[in-house]
Amino acid sequence: MSIKTDIGFTTQDQIFVRGRNLSEDILGKMDFIDMIYFTATGQEPSAPLRAMMNAIIVTATDHGLTPSAIAARMTILGAPESLQGAVAAGLLGAGNHFLGTMQNAAQFAQDHIGSLTLESPDAEVAAQARSVVKSYRAAKRILPGMGHPIHIHGDPRTPRLRQIARDNGFDGKHWRFMCAVEQAAKDEYGRLLPMNAAGAVGASVSDMGLAPIWARAFALIGRSAGLLAHLMDEAAKPLGQKIWDLILAQDDSAQLAGLAPRN
Amino acid sequence: MSIKTDIGFTTQDQIFVRGRNLSEDILGKMDFIDMIYFTATGQEPSAPLRAMMNAIIVTATDHGLTPSAIAARMTILGAPESLQGAVAAGLLGAGNHFLGTMQNAAQFAQDHIGSLTLESPDAEVAAQARSVVKSYRAAKRILPGMGHPIHIHGDPRTPRLRQIARDNGFDGKHWRFMCAVEQAAKDEYGRLLPMNAAGAVGASVSDMGLAPIWARAFALIGRSAGLLAHLMDEAAKPLGQKIWDLILAQDDSAQLAGLAPRN
Amino acid sequence: MSIKTDIGFTTQDQIFVRGRNLSEDILGKMDFIDMIYFTATGQEPSAPLRAMMNAIIVTATDHGLTPSAIAARMTILGAPESLQGAVAAGLLGAGNHFLGTMQNAAQFAQDHIGSLTLESPDAEVAAQARSVVKSYRAAKRILPGMGHPIHIHGDPRTPRLRQIARDNGFDGKHWRFMCAVEQAAKDEYGRLLPMNAAGAVGASVSDMGLAPIWARAFALIGRSAGLLAHLMDEAAKPLGQKIWDLILAQDDSAQLAGLAPRN
Amino acid sequence: MSIKTDIGFTTQDQIFVRGRNLSEDILGKMDFIDMIYFTATGQEPSAPLRAMMNAIIVTATDHGLTPSAIAARMTILGAPESLQGAVAAGLLGAGNHFLGTMQNAAQFAQDHIGSLTLESPDAEVAAQARSVVKSYRAAKRILPGMGHPIHIHGDPRTPRLRQIARDNGFDGKHWRFMCAVEQAAKDEYGRLLPMNAAGAVGASVSDMGLAPIWARAFALIGRSAGLLAHLMDEAAKPLGQKIWDLILAQDDSAQLAGLAPRN
Repeated sequence: MSIKTDIGFTTQDQIFVRGRNLSEDILGKMDFIDMIYFTATGQEPSAPLRAMMNAIIVTATDHGLTPSAIAARMTILGAPESLQGAVAAGLLGAGNHFLGTMQNAAQFAQDHIGSLTLESPDAEVAAQARSVVKSYRAAKRILPGMGHPIHIHGDPRTPRLRQIARDNGFDGKHWRFMCAVEQAAKDEYGRLLPMNAAGAVGASVSDMGLAPIWARAFALIGRSAGLLAHLMDEAAKPLGQKIWDLILAQDDSAQLAGLAPRN
Repeated sequence: MSIKTDIGFTTQDQIFVRGRNLSEDILGKMDFIDMIYFTATGQEPSAPLRAMMNAIIVTATDHGLTPSAIAARMTILGAPESLQGAVAAGLLGAGNHFLGTMQNAAQFAQDHIGSLTLESPDAEVAAQARSVVKSYRAAKRILPGMGHPIHIHGDPRTPRLRQIARDNGFDGKHWRFMCAVEQAAKDEYGRLLPMNAAGAVGASVSDMGLAPIWARAFALIGRSAGLLAHLMDEAAKPLGQKIWDLILAQDDSAQLAGLAPRN
Repeated sequence: MSIKTDIGFTTQDQIFVRGRNLSEDILGKMDFIDMIYFTATGQEPSAPLRAMMNAIIVTATDHGLTPSAIAARMTILGAPESLQGAVAAGLLGAGNHFLGTMQNAAQFAQDHIGSLTLESPDAEVAAQARSVVKSYRAAKRILPGMGHPIHIHGDPRTPRLRQIARDNGFDGKHWRFMCAVEQAAKDEYGRLLPMNAAGAVGASVSDMGLAPIWARAFALIGRSAGLLAHLMDEAAKPLGQKIWDLILAQDDSAQLAGLAPRN
Repeated sequence: MSIKTDIGFTTQDQIFVRGRNLSEDILGKMDFIDMIYFTATGQEPSAPLRAMMNAIIVTATDHGLTPSAIAARMTILGAPESLQGAVAAGLLGAGNHFLGTMQNAAQFAQDHIGSLTLESPDAEVAAQARSVVKSYRAAKRILPGMGHPIHIHGDPRTPRLRQIARDNGFDGKHWRFMCAVEQAAKDEYGRLLPMNAAGAVGASVSDMGLAPIWARAFALIGRSAGLLAHLMDEAAKPLGQKIWDLILAQDDSAQLAGLAPRN
């Protein structure tokens, strides 16, 4: 039985990744963003691919006290001996509702684009988008990549990501289809469900020619950096205990039971 | 009570990271490597810092079927619905024995360098290194950053990382001290305990002026990318079941008990 | 805003779980198996419920070097400082393919039983089971709770769990339906796809009147104990390094590349 | 190379755990609490051991919105597809500050009891305890098992656990030593640092003749059940979003920046 991976191997004297000598041919010559792509595919990304990957991973890095940042901070509070445990706890929340939605949106775009192309007539694109939206609505399924609880007038990342996609040649048929879905959703629901960052990433990843799993991969790589920033911040200016106190202060169980509260 | 972090916040229309508008001032303008540093510190890295960070994180990305890659592949075998769970399982092994050693080596260098500088006489550096090695040996503690089970004649990453450190101005007093420790260990134990990649990263991070936690952070970010490459590879060319079969095939419990084996 | 859970709260002097004083009314009076049910529901289990819960959780505890045990052992190899990290890594594999299948089987039974009862004519039960099997086959979906890669003639746990279910009054309509599915699968596929332990647990949990999530909960509680046994065994008689060596020994990449192998 | 564990193995027809047939000799005959001990040691616990294990694991199960419960609820909010991920996130916080302290207290008791016995003169026990407390204070180390942020007049679980230990023959020399440490800490610091539940568990586990790792194992098994109760409660009466909203409502960054807040 041969158990090996094309990713790499180690000899007594050298380490090889995708057939290249790590020390001689990779270190100092390849940036991390290149290495992400190279380790997974054995090829260096083109300049446009690199630019788009950077934009997507930067988008996923962080923006404040998200549930995964809270989970990571709660975890380091109990287990300061394991930085990796707190990062893992934070990443575990990157699923079907948050962050993992990037993959779901890419899957949605690739599953439903059918034979549409950039040359398809507008009416055909619109009809297909409408049909998909209607079937999702009938099945009471959430439309991946559309709508945002805070950015109700539009997600500020979406136009910027589209511009970067356009600048790099990735504003292709999947972007076109997802924009049609946004419009169809507005028509169908009678209110704006703006394409969110997950939708924009899903469209971009699809127009980059990558499988949907890449979107979740980018999300997890970016978020690992964001979580580490939170954990370094927690070490310097702890919030975890305050967060716990805040939550406990809302619990009036003791008072209702006629008992002295906890503090 | 005010609970907030300097890392960032969200308004209805915008997202801010470290005071900058994510869409307008970060996306498309900052690479991911810059974003890692910026999210944690609020500052963009200098060019030398960026180069050194890239080399360190690339070093941590991957090199084959490590225990954390095996754990990730075993996990996706049972729970294909959760890519994040498999990444988390893999990262959980980045601890005091593997990968996390980068932090331990940085801590070691910063704890024991005392008042040594680049100007200290050679004899003084050597004496301090010898004293530290002797005390670790007396306490039966492992010397962080020294020795490697496979690369017994020298870790190929170490000289390359030192060269990159030199090229970027980070071959400073901590590198000097760690090299003296390597020499002292050879003298004390009578055989080479070559400085490994963790030692090289620990020295570099210290000479970059960063706290030891940064070394583990870099390791976790890099490894997250390596694990995702393994998980994409597992989806394309599955090894997990083969690995399990291989392990079970070594178990002769059934035969010893006079029973028919499992298959 | 009131944020509280009925599960429990703490005062300066006491701890309450589901309205009972932990120290005075629970400790020493309730076994852990009772506490599992009590913490989740606020009620103590009946004797039959307790017996069935014990059988299910014991089933989930362990049986050898499963992928989740391997993942846990790989994790402690790298991060011996975090026992909880190794347990977490092992549990992360309890998903849709292994262990979590208990929940999927319960969901399947509860989704497809329709209006069948213990009084329904045999032919009606068989027809419904056949219909479900045919629709799963047409959709190329795996039948939850049926088939086993090793126990191809029958899973030894299934008849035993059914007997315990019968002894405790839980051999009800869901068991009847799942047995009909097993028969229908045999008819449809032309070979035995024996009901496995996950199917037996799914049927039992459903006939206990519990939601499917309970099946995965029981699986995770039981497996946490099994993983800790593996981790204590690993501390006493380490296998992790051997497993890694075994896997690496199968990799002939170095030889193929004309290089000296790793050791 | 033989890779096997004494824990168990599987044949085509049977499953063996610690040499017993799972279906015939374990299921329906052994409770889960027995199975925990049996899987790890190959022996069934005595009645007193079983009673004490039950009390310890029940103690660890839960008491309200702890940081690990919060982490688990934050995680399921983002990744509802992975119950195991949310449990894993919660367990990752069972470390050196919370829950894992049970192991640390057991380690402390076993490390420092020296040659003390139940027959040692009171003065000798007191002197040894005083010496340990003084050395911990001098090294600015936290005394494991002593003090509680909420139960400042005494942890209600401690006397109850001691009574259960006494009833079962486990109120031995380690309990005696830990009580002496509590007294010595009061003398040394001039205020009560009451022995907490972790200290009580640490003393009990030590007087049960078990290694310290057992204390963390019991904590993790019990907490897995508590976390699952929280996650079922979250599914029925969601708190996760409320908790996130509450935390974000404390962040006045947007106002300070003169921007419209998030909602």
